[in-house]
Amino acid sequence: MRITTVGLDADDTLWHNETIFRLTQDRLREMMAGFAPPDLLNARLAEVEARNLRLYGYGVKGFTLSMIETAMELTDHNPPGRLIADILAAGREMLQEPVEPLPGVENALAELSEHYRLVLITKGDLLHQEQKLAASGLGDLFAAVEIVSEKDASTYLRVFDRHGTGAAEAVMCGNSLRSDILPALEAGSWGAHVPYSVTWAHEMAEAPAGHARFVELGAIAELPGWVDSLS
Amino acid sequence: MRITTVGLDADDTLWHNETIFRLTQDRLREMMAGFAPPDLLNARLAEVEARNLRLYGYGVKGFTLSMIETAMELTDHNPPGRLIADILAAGREMLQEPVEPLPGVENALAELSEHYRLVLITKGDLLHQEQKLAASGLGDLFAAVEIVSEKDASTYLRVFDRHGTGAAEAVMCGNSLRSDILPALEAGSWGAHVPYSVTWAHEMAEAPAGHARFVELGAIAELPGWVDSLS
Repeated sequence: MRITTVGLDADDTLWHNETIFRLTQDRLREMMAGFAPPDLLNARLAEVEARNLRLYGYGVKGFTLSMIETAMELTDHNPPGRLIADILAAGREMLQEPVEPLPGVENALAELSEHYRLVLITKGDLLHQEQKLAASGLGDLFAAVEIVSEKDASTYLRVFDRHGTGAAEAVMCGNSLRSDILPALEAGSWGAHVPYSVTWAHEMAEAPAGHARFVELGAIAELPGWVDSLS
Repeated sequence: MRITTVGLDADDTLWHNETIFRLTQDRLREMMAGFAPPDLLNARLAEVEARNLRLYGYGVKGFTLSMIETAMELTDHNPPGRLIADILAAGREMLQEPVEPLPGVENALAELSEHYRLVLITKGDLLHQEQKLAASGLGDLFAAVEIVSEKDASTYLRVFDRHGTGAAEAVMCGNSLRSDILPALEAGSWGAHVPYSVTWAHEMAEAPAGHARFVELGAIAELPGWVDSLS
């Protein structure tokens, strides 16, 4: 077996992301405390997000719009004081959040980049993802960056064709079974799952335990050793 | 001289875009008529957009957030009735606007695609641009699609290296001198400017009259003939 290329997810694989959404949602719950109990707010926001996902896609701007829509509905279109301005400000803060690689990421990528072509493969807002990569200081380790609107098997086939030697000689590593691992396995690649502490409900899926090309790793630090072991 | 590749801008080159923003802004002015005279609304929205551009980038979601921010400021954070819900709905409508190629576009692209590699090069929201290309029915004519966060000389060097035979053997065609033509000329490509009826103030620039690799065309129908004449 020859492996030439390692694809890496970005959000919650290389740096925190879901945590920032959760913290912002906590703040929204506090701002809205007089209007909706926490459970109702969470449920309503999840509904609004799901309804808008097809149009807004993934990312902070769509999340901010969905927070505003939820707040307007729950305040009967009568938002108090600076509520909407505060939500807009919270969204802008998310876009300016400092980007810190997760523990072990820098070493793992540096080691992998000596022997394999690294390709960043991520969903989300184009501009914001580029800004996060620049802020992370990890940009130089990647041979290519692909910001995509959806991660399915055809995405991995196309990206590993373009930037590597095909999906069969590539490993995909990420925190989401649904977006990073299952479609990459379907494309014929190898999949290394590195769970993150929090997973967005939308990204939940069952691990393909026993699949010949799948591994579950406890930390990204174990990735270089596993990839080497395949060759 | 050999030309192998033709880059094409999308918004306002292949289909209407700025007009849709203008019409939505007209609607916002009407919704806000009781709070701000038209000139004040236009000026305030332009300020808010400019302030947010670095964070939000180009596209409908950022524009919707800026419309909401402007409306909140101009209503002293006391928006009447369904104003904010109406702005959110106007933004969603923009994202669902049918996409119709501008006159002459289909023929010009079909003709060009027989002899040259066509590359779509556009800014904006990743998901929305992909959806517009799919809805336009023009997707099959393009050898490659690059949705970028900024159009500068290095963008054109990179894209024409990746999808063609380098910038010197490529023509870039678009409606914006600032984004499509001047940076492409700087990269060493040829530039064909096809003006659109409306131009966003941010995209204004002076035509490089007399530049050896520049032409101003009255319509995209003239593009195939001009490109052929270079070889």
